[in-house]
Amino acid sequence: MHDIYEEVKKLCEGAKAAAPALARASGEVRNGVLTAFAALLRKNQEKILAANTADMEAARENGLSVAMMDRLLLTPARLEEIACAMEALVMQEDPIGLGTVQSRPNGMEIKHIRVPLGVVGVIFESRPNVSADIAGLCIKSGNAAVLRGGKEAIRSNTAITETAGDALESCGLPRACVSLIPFTDRAGAQALMEMRGLIDVLIPRGGKGLIQNVVENAKVPVIETGAGNCHLYIHRDGDPGMAVSVAVNAKTSRPSVCNAIETILVHRDVAAGLLPRIKQELEKRGVELRGCPETIKIIDVNPADEADWATEYDDLIVAVKVVESIEEAVAHINRYSTNHSEAIITKDMNAASYFTGAVESACVYVNVSTRFTDGGCFGLGAEVGIATQKLHARGPLGLSALTTKKYIISGNGQIRE
Amino acid sequence: MHDIYEEVKKLCEGAKAAAPALARASGEVRNGVLTAFAALLRKNQEKILAANTADMEAARENGLSVAMMDRLLLTPARLEEIACAMEALVMQEDPIGLGTVQSRPNGMEIKHIRVPLGVVGVIFESRPNVSADIAGLCIKSGNAAVLRGGKEAIRSNTAITETAGDALESCGLPRACVSLIPFTDRAGAQALMEMRGLIDVLIPRGGKGLIQNVVENAKVPVIETGAGNCHLYIHRDGDPGMAVSVAVNAKTSRPSVCNAIETILVHRDVAAGLLPRIKQELEKRGVELRGCPETIKIIDVNPADEADWATEYDDLIVAVKVVESIEEAVAHINRYSTNHSEAIITKDMNAASYFTGAVESACVYVNVSTRFTDGGCFGLGAEVGIATQKLHARGPLGLSALTTKKYIISGNGQIRE
Repeated sequence: MHDIYEEVKKLCEGAKAAAPALARASGEVRNGVLTAFAALLRKNQEKILAANTADMEAARENGLSVAMMDRLLLTPARLEEIACAMEALVMQEDPIGLGTVQSRPNGMEIKHIRVPLGVVGVIFESRPNVSADIAGLCIKSGNAAVLRGGKEAIRSNTAITETAGDALESCGLPRACVSLIPFTDRAGAQALMEMRGLIDVLIPRGGKGLIQNVVENAKVPVIETGAGNCHLYIHRDGDPGMAVSVAVNAKTSRPSVCNAIETILVHRDVAAGLLPRIKQELEKRGVELRGCPETIKIIDVNPADEADWATEYDDLIVAVKVVESIEEAVAHINRYSTNHSEAIITKDMNAASYFTGAVESACVYVNVSTRFTDGGCFGLGAEVGIATQKLHARGPLGLSALTTKKYIISGNGQIRE
Repeated sequence: MHDIYEEVKKLCEGAKAAAPALARASGEVRNGVLTAFAALLRKNQEKILAANTADMEAARENGLSVAMMDRLLLTPARLEEIACAMEALVMQEDPIGLGTVQSRPNGMEIKHIRVPLGVVGVIFESRPNVSADIAGLCIKSGNAAVLRGGKEAIRSNTAITETAGDALESCGLPRACVSLIPFTDRAGAQALMEMRGLIDVLIPRGGKGLIQNVVENAKVPVIETGAGNCHLYIHRDGDPGMAVSVAVNAKTSRPSVCNAIETILVHRDVAAGLLPRIKQELEKRGVELRGCPETIKIIDVNPADEADWATEYDDLIVAVKVVESIEEAVAHINRYSTNHSEAIITKDMNAASYFTGAVESACVYVNVSTRFTDGGCFGLGAEVGIATQKLHARGPLGLSALTTKKYIISGNGQIRE
């Protein structure tokens, strides 16, 4: 345990020492690293896929589920997608140096500009493409990255981060700008969470358990991402066809993702008319409905209990509740939501305005499916994650979430009287 | 102890329940509250000054220092200054609602706009004007405020926050939008630090001990402010007259504040010429110099030890170190600084650019005194504090630091394929 802590510390010190070289590199040099990274991912295809095959064999021996195995799998097509994602990053706007300049009455000039955070730590789970994604986002934004992935993907992640190191080196930058923690047990993650002064921000990418663990135990600054207990509220004047269509899309188009809905709230005035239609369309697609007592009076579904309101199923299950008013809907959402994405179906501008103002979540939709909460759909390009906290950055995180702003003041000897 | 926790929790729940009314209030209404607050501070002058007199008497009995007594004192002139500060806030730009709008190819519209954080907690020390300042900044930015001031000022703070409550009420808003925790011992502050889900951000305003305590113990998000172990580095080509003038200004114009310098670093090539002049000008103003071994070879001053490099004196003392190179100066700063404000004196653009890029602090100056790190000097208006962290906001914090951004997406039934 102590050895792991010391090893992780050494690795983070290496990242911190390497970070200034990347932070000072021009946008062209950083884009050059990304281009080289894409080329080397293609060139090293055989080596990377062999590492992935070894991961897959170990996973099979350890009895990993079919779904998990599929997440872990790399194919030539998937590796090509990863390489293309690195090239897409080249085309994104460079966030570094963006900002404002003002001249003050005493003649001094104040620049307020975006600079890299320094060293970004990321703890993630089984998908090996995340190691390339994060490495790419950090290179683009001038940050060193310290990665700690799941044990299932350790060989794939090693091959990918070594390729990133080769790309950095080929552009005259230190390999240590992208590092992978080789310890995949709890102690490796715990050590990373304690690196005050070495890790500028830690981002958990993965399921609720991982995120909760990082938020509660990290001693370094954290960007909380991902958990999505999302809601759809159908107001009394909501278009019934639109309500059903959005409910079906937001629940069933990809039930395992964080922007899928988990609870449908229906105004009592329209519950009797709408719930049978919603039940029919959702059950047709294999969804299990769980209802509040009022719901059960209208449609024959299993009962929902307190735990259902708080659960992110990430599955073909949805909780249904009849509410007396929009105020009750908002109160329910603010109580149980993870503050990710919520939607209202209404024709009433005042209801929409009250809902978007009073709901405390990062993304609030009016007559649109919650499934659009995504960096790509919002025009932000590659996404660091979806933040559900209020400080620093919220919602889909673009590259600027990996920067901080610095004041640079220049003059000719100004002093303050 | 448990009772205090429960009482503080009740008070924070009251603030959270009251916050939406203020968050939804228009800019005109919020400005109306500030105008009423200023008028009522003037109208209640007698009551507020009587409360302050009682604080002052208790302070005298408890043997408070003259400096502390002066911080605590309110006079008709000082109260008028506070009222004027509230009126100045009316003139500042409303941060709420600022942002961007974009239309996406599928016809949905995405607004990304500033909204209040919700409930802002502030822990501060003896100056009673802070309670009015924070109440005003929170009202302007649409946030409910929960204040916990020092015990010396409890009567003054109570009178001021009650006046804020009257102002809120006179504009039809809940009094609980500004609350003062009546418990001035440690348990009152500790309870506030634990209010997860009720306090959206906690800001410590005061000395190093207070800030450190909050950063280490808070379980709610914190904006770290204030501590300033600031440095002046004189490069080998720095103008000697400018170097001396900035050193004198940055150390002596107001030694007790966070943007005053605590260490002067001098390049070895110019140390022999500069140090005697710096010593003469600083000693003339009562400053004690403490030097590294190389410094002591040149000027007759007390020796500095390791602790001196890490100390924010906030007093007429300065540490002096001779460095071999600009790299050594930057390494020293990044090791010992609290990341507040640092300055370089140089004519060399490359040296300036290296210094401003490599120094990790919020504000980096080239040929300007560090004393300008201040919301007013930067044109930001009233200031929440000076942040020394990297996330959310850094440097002098304007009103926007008390906001978060929300995505509001509107459409006509868009679903994601």
